[in-house]
Amino acid sequence: MSGALTIVGLGPGSADLITPAASRALAEATDLVGYGPYLDRISEIRPNQTVHASDNRVELDRARLALSLARSGRRVAVVSGGDPGVFAMAAAVFEAVEKGEPAWRDLDIRVELGVTAMLAAAASVGAPLGGDFCAISLSDNLKSWATIERRLKAAAEADFVIALYNAASKARPHQLDRAFDFLRNLKGGETVTVFARAAGTGHAEVTVTTLAEAKASAADMRTLVIIGSSSTRLIDRAGRLPFVYTPRSENS
Amino acid sequence: MSGALTIVGLGPGSADLITPAASRALAEATDLVGYGPYLDRISEIRPNQTVHASDNRVELDRARLALSLARSGRRVAVVSGGDPGVFAMAAAVFEAVEKGEPAWRDLDIRVELGVTAMLAAAASVGAPLGGDFCAISLSDNLKSWATIERRLKAAAEADFVIALYNAASKARPHQLDRAFDFLRNLKGGETVTVFARAAGTGHAEVTVTTLAEAKASAADMRTLVIIGSSSTRLIDRAGRLPFVYTPRSENS
Repeated sequence: MSGALTIVGLGPGSADLITPAASRALAEATDLVGYGPYLDRISEIRPNQTVHASDNRVELDRARLALSLARSGRRVAVVSGGDPGVFAMAAAVFEAVEKGEPAWRDLDIRVELGVTAMLAAAASVGAPLGGDFCAISLSDNLKSWATIERRLKAAAEADFVIALYNAASKARPHQLDRAFDFLRNLKGGETVTVFARAAGTGHAEVTVTTLAEAKASAADMRTLVIIGSSSTRLIDRAGRLPFVYTPRSENS
Repeated sequence: MSGALTIVGLGPGSADLITPAASRALAEATDLVGYGPYLDRISEIRPNQTVHASDNRVELDRARLALSLARSGRRVAVVSGGDPGVFAMAAAVFEAVEKGEPAWRDLDIRVELGVTAMLAAAASVGAPLGGDFCAISLSDNLKSWATIERRLKAAAEADFVIALYNAASKARPHQLDRAFDFLRNLKGGETVTVFARAAGTGHAEVTVTTLAEAKASAADMRTLVIIGSSSTRLIDRAGRLPFVYTPRSENS
């Protein structure tokens, strides 16, 4: 009997943003592995499915458990927020494969796509990712702050729109203000800045401000921050939040 | 009667990668506007839905038609490949709003999310976008080649994984080789490079090579190219394509 492991993207939160392919992968699994709150988002768990819930901070352990189960012949779904490939579970699984038992390399391992958070954040205000852009995780658990600053500097030089993942958390309250301070030396204070909290969940809270006015206190661990390029702009609307978009052309 | 306009992401191609929310937006529309091949991907068009197919090269005209229809009270779905917010139709619609009739700003305009091509390309080989990354369109219809080179240079300095959209087309056969040549002066020749053609359609063709060996002739207009960071690596497998992934940590 040969097992299989699928890393399944649950998207930003709303059930109607989970692809049919991802739903099928969940339904076909014998074992569901993941962070508790993600497992809670699965609407239907059958009695013959085994659930392995874990803490968020043990991604590699979770990946190893999933690989062991697959190796023993189970059909395992590892659940992931957003898209598994973007600051989520897929890289952890492949890291575990690389460092783990040689037999794990022969397993049928697939990534089932999801909608990643920056797309939901962008859609909540218009089309701020309309031009070239970059995605940077502000968490310095896995890289140095020097690396983060090097990337922010390059992003400013490229005039990329910048999507910040893991922008703020209780354990890391100061990084986002450091990032704003750093960018204020490189980009205009009028640069459009968007805080999108819980976008794609049905309960989004969106704030549109400028880089000069941006404060980390407006963000928490559910907030994705988008900092515009020099051409990102607002379309004002009477009595409503403006649309935010970045033109496709650099000359418009 | 108040109309509405929804820009709907059809994802990379497979029907089972269209979100239920996007499917519902299509089903609820009175009018479907878009590029012919995207409209052809909609499995069910009801007799009372009006289809407005257009050529791919008139995005702004298509956006204006959609806005006019919405203004006249219709429920319009503008179909878009991938996610509407990433090198697709959303920015064109908001550009048309900005430049168009003031009344268009009061319309109910929404973006319905989709899976964008780089996610499907990444999933087809593992998790190459596992670290910080950027997305650059190589089309110089809308920006200068100098801007593209400035962004490639910054991406190399940041050690971002680079996802190249619009990497090649019949009208622009030389840019991708120019981009490879340019990057070969900035990044190691051994840098992992992935050509993912038609990823997420059920008929993906994937090639894994190095920056030194990469040639534009391996790409066409359906190919997304991913160029790794310095830590992007292969996990070799007997008799199968290697997995490609980028570790989450800069120290692994």
